Amino acid sequence: MTQLTEQKSETKINVAILGATGYTGEEALRILLNHPHVRVARLFSLEFVGTPVSEAFPRFSKASELVIEEYKPGASLKGCDAVIACLPHKASMAILAPLVETGIKVIDLSADFRFASPETYTAAYGVEHLYPKLLKKAVYGLPELNRAQLPDCPLVAVPGCYPTSAILGAAPLLKNHLVRPSRIVIDSKSGVTGAGRSPSSRCHFPECNESVSPYGIGKHRHQPEIEEQLSRLYGGEVKVTFAPHLVPMSRGILSTIYLDPDGDVPLEAVRSAYEEMYAGEPFVTVLPHGSYPATSEVTFTNSCHIGITKTGEGKIVIASAIDNLQKGASGQAVQCLNVVFGFNETEGLTQA
Amino acid sequence: MTQLTEQKSETKINVAILGATGYTGEEALRILLNHPHVRVARLFSLEFVGTPVSEAFPRFSKASELVIEEYKPGASLKGCDAVIACLPHKASMAILAPLVETGIKVIDLSADFRFASPETYTAAYGVEHLYPKLLKKAVYGLPELNRAQLPDCPLVAVPGCYPTSAILGAAPLLKNHLVRPSRIVIDSKSGVTGAGRSPSSRCHFPECNESVSPYGIGKHRHQPEIEEQLSRLYGGEVKVTFAPHLVPMSRGILSTIYLDPDGDVPLEAVRSAYEEMYAGEPFVTVLPHGSYPATSEVTFTNSCHIGITKTGEGKIVIASAIDNLQKGASGQAVQCLNVVFGFNETEGLTQA
Amino acid sequence: MTQLTEQKSETKINVAILGATGYTGEEALRILLNHPHVRVARLFSLEFVGTPVSEAFPRFSKASELVIEEYKPGASLKGCDAVIACLPHKASMAILAPLVETGIKVIDLSADFRFASPETYTAAYGVEHLYPKLLKKAVYGLPELNRAQLPDCPLVAVPGCYPTSAILGAAPLLKNHLVRPSRIVIDSKSGVTGAGRSPSSRCHFPECNESVSPYGIGKHRHQPEIEEQLSRLYGGEVKVTFAPHLVPMSRGILSTIYLDPDGDVPLEAVRSAYEEMYAGEPFVTVLPHGSYPATSEVTFTNSCHIGITKTGEGKIVIASAIDNLQKGASGQAVQCLNVVFGFNETEGLTQA
Amino acid sequence: MTQLTEQKSETKINVAILGATGYTGEEALRILLNHPHVRVARLFSLEFVGTPVSEAFPRFSKASELVIEEYKPGASLKGCDAVIACLPHKASMAILAPLVETGIKVIDLSADFRFASPETYTAAYGVEHLYPKLLKKAVYGLPELNRAQLPDCPLVAVPGCYPTSAILGAAPLLKNHLVRPSRIVIDSKSGVTGAGRSPSSRCHFPECNESVSPYGIGKHRHQPEIEEQLSRLYGGEVKVTFAPHLVPMSRGILSTIYLDPDGDVPLEAVRSAYEEMYAGEPFVTVLPHGSYPATSEVTFTNSCHIGITKTGEGKIVIASAIDNLQKGASGQAVQCLNVVFGFNETEGLTQA
Repeated sequence: MTQLTEQKSETKINVAILGATGYTGEEALRILLNHPHVRVARLFSLEFVGTPVSEAFPRFSKASELVIEEYKPGASLKGCDAVIACLPHKASMAILAPLVETGIKVIDLSADFRFASPETYTAAYGVEHLYPKLLKKAVYGLPELNRAQLPDCPLVAVPGCYPTSAILGAAPLLKNHLVRPSRIVIDSKSGVTGAGRSPSSRCHFPECNESVSPYGIGKHRHQPEIEEQLSRLYGGEVKVTFAPHLVPMSRGILSTIYLDPDGDVPLEAVRSAYEEMYAGEPFVTVLPHGSYPATSEVTFTNSCHIGITKTGEGKIVIASAIDNLQKGASGQAVQCLNVVFGFNETEGLTQA
Repeated sequence: MTQLTEQKSETKINVAILGATGYTGEEALRILLNHPHVRVARLFSLEFVGTPVSEAFPRFSKASELVIEEYKPGASLKGCDAVIACLPHKASMAILAPLVETGIKVIDLSADFRFASPETYTAAYGVEHLYPKLLKKAVYGLPELNRAQLPDCPLVAVPGCYPTSAILGAAPLLKNHLVRPSRIVIDSKSGVTGAGRSPSSRCHFPECNESVSPYGIGKHRHQPEIEEQLSRLYGGEVKVTFAPHLVPMSRGILSTIYLDPDGDVPLEAVRSAYEEMYAGEPFVTVLPHGSYPATSEVTFTNSCHIGITKTGEGKIVIASAIDNLQKGASGQAVQCLNVVFGFNETEGLTQA
Repeated sequence: MTQLTEQKSETKINVAILGATGYTGEEALRILLNHPHVRVARLFSLEFVGTPVSEAFPRFSKASELVIEEYKPGASLKGCDAVIACLPHKASMAILAPLVETGIKVIDLSADFRFASPETYTAAYGVEHLYPKLLKKAVYGLPELNRAQLPDCPLVAVPGCYPTSAILGAAPLLKNHLVRPSRIVIDSKSGVTGAGRSPSSRCHFPECNESVSPYGIGKHRHQPEIEEQLSRLYGGEVKVTFAPHLVPMSRGILSTIYLDPDGDVPLEAVRSAYEEMYAGEPFVTVLPHGSYPATSEVTFTNSCHIGITKTGEGKIVIASAIDNLQKGASGQAVQCLNVVFGFNETEGLTQA
Repeated sequence: MTQLTEQKSETKINVAILGATGYTGEEALRILLNHPHVRVARLFSLEFVGTPVSEAFPRFSKASELVIEEYKPGASLKGCDAVIACLPHKASMAILAPLVETGIKVIDLSADFRFASPETYTAAYGVEHLYPKLLKKAVYGLPELNRAQLPDCPLVAVPGCYPTSAILGAAPLLKNHLVRPSRIVIDSKSGVTGAGRSPSSRCHFPECNESVSPYGIGKHRHQPEIEEQLSRLYGGEVKVTFAPHLVPMSRGILSTIYLDPDGDVPLEAVRSAYEEMYAGEPFVTVLPHGSYPATSEVTFTNSCHIGITKTGEGKIVIASAIDNLQKGASGQAVQCLNVVFGFNETEGLTQA
């Protein structure tokens, strides 16, 4: 392994990954190993403890010699500048809050710090929030909305995969009050990695192969997350009907969003709203008129592609595609990390 | 091949298939070869002319010794009691109208005789209708709606795959005036056989594998077909927003339909409407409360599975799954054939 | 459900399925529900006990009203003429041996009665055989080899999916001593249903999708089963190298078999051996020269397609394709049932 | 697009891609856009001429502003230091030979310069070689075998995807005379991108989805390429039986290679041969004893994973996995480019 690219440690920050063996943890590792300003310092998981990551995932056999460690709650991560946390909802907050105290920058992929109020969190996740004060300081990690607040925040709450595709897809319309804020329909189609790495009957290959199926219509925990962010943008209550579907592919999410124009809203006004809001954004592409996004065009990138349609009967239909593990999780986490540490926002991330 | 099941011809009708080498033609053949009251008499196509079907499709190597013939427009199909026509839209009417004159029962899978008026047809398909009088006599071949008119009709216009899933999914709500007739959203997800057998860039394996993508939003020719049938049921104009999507699987269609209740409509009233309308239907299953359909449960059957949800914010969401080549095409054609000839409606079709 | 095809019970046998909720049990049920001489009388499983099968598998919602029962070892199956047993290896024999005593015909899909000697069984499966005497009476349920012995046997040991494709593929060459009996290479590619219904990391959708991988090379328990049957045909010891692979599809097995001709064996002699041995076989097709089998041509049928190649350097390469759940399991079980009970051998099975 | 990573042109070479819109051309572009020492200067194709690549492939919408040009045979590529040619076999040599004259470094992905003698080329490809002298100067671009000759060569003939997996898999055994040089069986399983971007019936989604099938057994043009390279390593004639198979996945090749030990060759000797030959190789991993490669572990990387088995009956079975578009084509082309220009060999390539 003499040919591993040499790493100049003086220009690098040290990053730890908590929950490194799930799909989002593995993806974070894959991205950070190619990041010019990051040294992956430590990997933690409850599985494969004591095993080199190159053995747990042969994909890393030439790329990393790190050994997976068990994280003892309360332990410090001395020497690390940041931690990317890929831990389960509800378990995450108890582990991360003490880390924030130590001054390490925390990028959290769980839902634990995504809501503005502890009540909304409790309503969605069914448990009390243990750190309501920290909740106030966390920033919702969608740089396209909150770039300015990221540099100084102690904890970034990276959005879920469905919300990222839905919010980026609907934001310009709500921000500009071009649509009615209720009865918005979001029909999302997700690849199976979205359900995580634990084997289940539902994700058993012969069960989900050659099948498409909805689940949890109107009851998914991402619905209040989407509503909260869109309401903030709109400056008033936004209500959506959210229907997630499982489709037989590994990666990718497509959200098709159906909205009613508020008054007479020509297509040009709709397109302008998107082009203005996303001008200069390195990871959001508004497709030309008549084009629709395909998830295959964004998989393995941190990009979001958005297609805009206005139908004959006056419905606005937005289709928004991302890679659920990149822009919908670990890529976005690295994008936030870049903003927090003042790196070029695209560093380590691929636009193609 | 001595062990081929012997066929008692006295109890059988003779059926020809026009366009036997496309996906719907092949599926019709597959079904009819197992039909106890049908003898497949002749197979026609523009491809594989002169070739045994067992060679064109090795799948039939032990099942049929028929040779594929070229159909000369104007030729009669003497000796045949019925023809299942799997021909392209626009080309179909010119071939079928003369056949109807000969008294043979025609089951047409094209769109050419699906609309009540020639004007609607022209608006959707861009050509003049050549046989407007025959259009009046054709029956839209959805037995769950039109069973009574089928036996005496000379020509059955079998619905397209998207309309079958959408109409069966929405019919009870519109028939019973439980929902508002406008701003109905139909988000459909189709397997790739729906696009036919001709190779194309869009259906090239690496292009559609691992990808989901919308197409033709608000512009698909199945939208007016859905609207016409639902309007007829409702007794007034129904408008829908129809967005088809291609998903990486071979067979199956799932339509997720979003409707607004007209006034105060409890979930029980919704469920009752479905249970009443589909009581006794051999091929429609209303799933229990809380269950969602999966296309894998209906592929290779003539069944339609329907799941019903009413969300917290009061949206009614119906998910309706069929096999696009069976209930969405050739299975439904055989179901119609059974009704036309007075056979048991399930004959030759599988419910599992 | 008034339209369920009426069933004339006087001409039917009653069949029970043990292990009805695994993939092979479900497939047996699907086949038998369309079998004109069979009434599915009882369904047993350790899962879904007390649940209607129509609820456990919505696919059966219009097809069966049976409730899944728990089978108490030692209980009789009074009133049943036959049982199809889809039980795990090693557990199967203890349950089936007492049933054989009651006179019911037993069709066993496990490996427990497939070997001629208890020693070979123990070597392959690591446990003592509990019923060595019954082992002697069992017939290996490959009708193409053992049709004559089936009618009078009390217990049919249906072959595994890999052995069926491999043995049918190689049999004519070994029976006719056209190839050397050692260093035969069998490279098999299997769909994921072959691994059963229990969720596992290996069969988790994102793990096996977009991947092909070998496993258990030279160590799979189907290797001795293949060797025993081929040795019997050859009249001497046959040794194979067996390498199974998992490919990302639900159903189907392709075995590519590489053999060395024993002396000067022209292609014509090879083809003749196949055409003679399989003349009149309802489920085996020898493809024309230059054609290769594809699993998609045999899925959802009980067929085996065989392609023959002789390479420039003199290797004979046989490619043999079946549906692992039909000809490789439950279809073959029904084929055996048909022979045992004197029905037409193709009854209830599809050749297309 | 203000956030595109700034490029320091002083340290970069200019590279053109010929045939930029096929799968290998697109992959080359994707890789080179992230290469720190390369500026993609020009893109050529017969399709999409005059179209920005960001429009032809939305994936590149934020990554490149290049417009696709038509290449006029005979035109120079002034200002370019290297060209990566992704042109069809037979057409490639006529375009590339004149370019070599201009001094530009040519990395050719076609087969036109892969063989040592024009006769072998003609036998495999059926046309006369137009530039036999240049053929002598070309180097077969497998750095693991020919690293030393690459820096000074004017034209690199990058191996095909099947040969890369097969040669890397078998090389240590033949180089060390551990196996017999004849009757080697190579059973390869390829994803569908290997068949290129042109739509065809064979690669139509519903035709190859849910199916595995062999093709061209013993007749594929990669067989002589494999034999020539292995013969050179062995120092004598090597003969193989090569059987390619199409499997339903987009990317990846697995070659399972069956070899007979030459005399008494313990497993340890086999493993040592691999570990020695590939020590220090940045892109070849010899998996631990008992592990098998999966293509999913190497897709989107330039890695080759090799698993070694010796069976009870004494067969050596090697399984070798690569990504057909990376290590089997464009990744390997960039690896060669790196060696030719003296960059770090892993530059721009991912090992994970």
